Order: sequence, then C-alpha cells, then structure tokens
Amino acid sequence: MTNPTAAILVIGDEILSGRTRDANMHHLANVLTEIGIDLKEARLVSDNESAIIDAVHFLSKSYDHVFTSGGIGPTHDDITADAIAKAFDRSIEMRDDALKILQSHYDGQGVELNEARLRMARIPAGAELIDNPVSAAPGFRIGNVHVMAGVPAIFQAMVQSVVPSLTGGLPIQSETVRITRGEGDIAADLGALAQTYPDVSMGSYPFQRDGVYGTNVVLRSSDKERLAAAKVELIKCVKK
Amino acid sequence: MTNPTAAILVIGDEILSGRTRDANMHHLANVLTEIGIDLKEARLVSDNESAIIDAVHFLSKSYDHVFTSGGIGPTHDDITADAIAKAFDRSIEMRDDALKILQSHYDGQGVELNEARLRMARIPAGAELIDNPVSAAPGFRIGNVHVMAGVPAIFQAMVQSVVPSLTGGLPIQSETVRITRGEGDIAADLGALAQTYPDVSMGSYPFQRDGVYGTNVVLRSSDKERLAAAKVELIKCVKK
Repeated sequence: MTNPTAAILVIGDEILSGRTRDANMHHLANVLTEIGIDLKEARLVSDNESAIIDAVHFLSKSYDHVFTSGGIGPTHDDITADAIAKAFDRSIEMRDDALKILQSHYDGQGVELNEARLRMARIPAGAELIDNPVSAAPGFRIGNVHVMAGVPAIFQAMVQSVVPSLTGGLPIQSETVRITRGEGDIAADLGALAQTYPDVSMGSYPFQRDGVYGTNVVLRSSDKERLAAAKVELIKCVKK
Repeated sequence: MTNPTAAILVIGDEILSGRTRDANMHHLANVLTEIGIDLKEARLVSDNESAIIDAVHFLSKSYDHVFTSGGIGPTHDDITADAIAKAFDRSIEMRDDALKILQSHYDGQGVELNEARLRMARIPAGAELIDNPVSAAPGFRIGNVHVMAGVPAIFQAMVQSVVPSLTGGLPIQSETVRITRGEGDIAADLGALAQTYPDVSMGSYPFQRDGVYGTNVVLRSSDKERLAAAKVELIKCVKK
C-alpha cells in the first residue's frame, strides 16, 4: 500500500521577492508527514491568473490532494478564488453561507462589512467552505483542491479544519544518524544499503559546523521494524 | 524595458518532508532582486528523475534563467546531473577539467578521491563549470540552466560565482508602509491607487501582533520617482 500524495501551491509575490520566508509549506509538510500523506511537490507562483490556473490543472491531476496558500483576501491582488473557479470551469458568485459567516464576524467586531470585505464571500459554484476560526473569511475545497489563506496563523487554522476530512496512510517514521565522516566516504556503503532496503528512503545531508565535517543520514519509512533494522546496519557499516 | 525573468528548482526530499526549511530559494530571491532579475516561479520536487526533467523543460522554456539547487553530491540519491543531461539530450561523462579540480582539492586534504567522489566529476557534454570555492566539486551551466549544490553555504558561493555572468535589469526598489487598519478597510483605496500606478506593484500583507491588527503594504518598482510618489499618495489616502 502506498500513501496518498499531495502538492502545495503557494500564491503571491512576497516569497518570490525575498521579502518573507515561506512558513506555510514547512508547516504543511510536517502535518502531512504525521498523518501519512506524502508531500511530493511544492510550487510558488506570483499573483498571475494563468500561472495559477496552469499549476492547479497540473497538480490536481498529478496528486491526490492539492493545498493552496494565499490570495483570498479583500484586496485587488487577491485573485486566487477567481483563478480557481476558471481552472475548474465554474462560475463564482457571492454565496449566502459565506456571507452569513462574514456578517456575523464583522457585526460582532462593530466593523463595516464593506464592498472589499464582501469579495471574500465570493466562492466558486459547488465548492465546500473551509472553516476559519481566526478571522472568519472561509477557505474552500473544490474537487481535490483545498484553497486556504496565506497568513500563517490562518493557514494553520484552516489546515487543522481540513485534516479530519483527509484519509492518511501509514505515518512516515524517520531516524537521523549523525556521522562525522564526509559524504564521499560513506557513499558506497550507503548506496549498497539503500539497495538492500528499497522500502526505507535514505537521504544524506552533509554538514560543516564549528570546524566539524560530517553527514546526517536521514532514514524514512512507514515500516518501523525495517527502519530500525536499517539504522542498526547503517551504524555498523559506517563504523568500519 | 522589462527585467529578465528567472525560476528556481529545488531538488530533494528534505524540505518536502518538513525536515528542513528552505534557505536557498530565499537567498536567491534576495540576490536576484538586487541585480534586477525577477524571480517568477519556484518549484520543489523530490529526487525523482522524471519530475526533475519535466520541471527543467518547462522552466527553461518559460524563463530567461533557471537555477537548480541540490542533488549533485556523491551519494546514490544525487541524480540531478544525470537528469539534467537527459533533459537536454546530452551525454554525461567524467570530465578532465572537473576531475583535476577534485583531485587537487582532495590531494590537498589528504583524502582519497574514491569512486563515490569521482561521480562529482561527471558533467553533461558542453556544459560550463561553475566554481565552488567551498568544497571544490563544481556546479555547471547548460543552456540557461545553472545547476548548483543544495548545501546552503555552497549554494551561496556558487550563486556568487554566477552573478557576474548575468545581465540584470533595473534593480527593484521597495517601500513598506505599515498601516494600523484592517486590509478590508484600505482595500478600495489601494485598488484605485494600483490602477493609477500600473508600474508600481502593490502587495498587502495583513498582520496581527501583540493585539494590534494592521496591514503592511509593500510597493515595488524599478522607477524610484514613481515609487516615491505612490508612497506619498498611499499614506495620504489611508489617513483619510
């Protein structure tokens, strides 16, 4: 049995311009690993309609689940909902259920639900809303695509709303072995070990810290026993 | 005149599994912004040959420059050089110039240039080497694709080796205006301003820190005077 697969599409200029560092991809990667869904690809595109549509087409066909982050707020550069509607060839209109959520949230705060904020009630036809306990304006799911906000606190809350609806596989366990030898020294043994354990993925990450050179080898598998056995063999063969 | 465009392709499982946070994309984004090249897209794929080939095909056709990070080390999971050779339909063999660089580096360290390390001298036919002042093993450029290491210190050194060969456009200047009003409050004015200044990109990023809600508006343009004028108008209209 193989685990379900997923991709994330981060939409917006702020990471591509170097202004901020991604937080959502990293958060989602950890959450999916815990529930046994394999994050296979990540893409970042700018606020550009055709870039969003092309990415959504490809990713939703290629993976079991797609998660998007960003571009569903009230301002002129928030074009994600419209782009997703186009990608799925659906109409997009203000929806009563989304409107009610916004109305009650802004009434409670004594804030006007103005025209800009009303844009956040526009949802593609046939989509299901995703709960936003932080700032009310909902995300939505259409087909296998989960459309969520870019602000990290809201993104994380929406991920939490979505997780119970996802069917995960076997959680991936990982073990890191820190080896104070160069990657090139252990490469042959590691390659042979990887062939003996095709069900355990082995990544090697060289490090250099405080004058010490070495390699972190990360073993990952959904099978605990094979993982433990591979770790024992790895330690044995790099000590040679 | 529009600036040259670029994409980055990050190759490897370590970020997709949540084990580490990306550093190379963020570094490259900042360097390119400084020299007037617009980073338009970023992709992260796992160590999978067809995923790498598909991404390289698409990105090298779509953008002026492509930068890859990761998968050119000595271990079994380092498949980037072979995948790039296939993507460009080139042969790949051990090359004398790369071999000499490795030999002199490892001789100097008294370390054996073993079979695993020799893999790092395999370079696609017709590619130019990219200097690696940190750990010798070179990157390479083929067509508009710059293939570089994933270890952040080495990636950064290689980027520095490559930058002088790139023709940039006008550096993008940016100004951030911190506004203690909700995104929905300023959205209408901001949208109108964006229409008046099509040459100044305007991104709005809501924040919520220590109980204060507000919006950072980031203005970006290669035209300093237009940028300054847009900033003055933005401050005026959000104070209304």
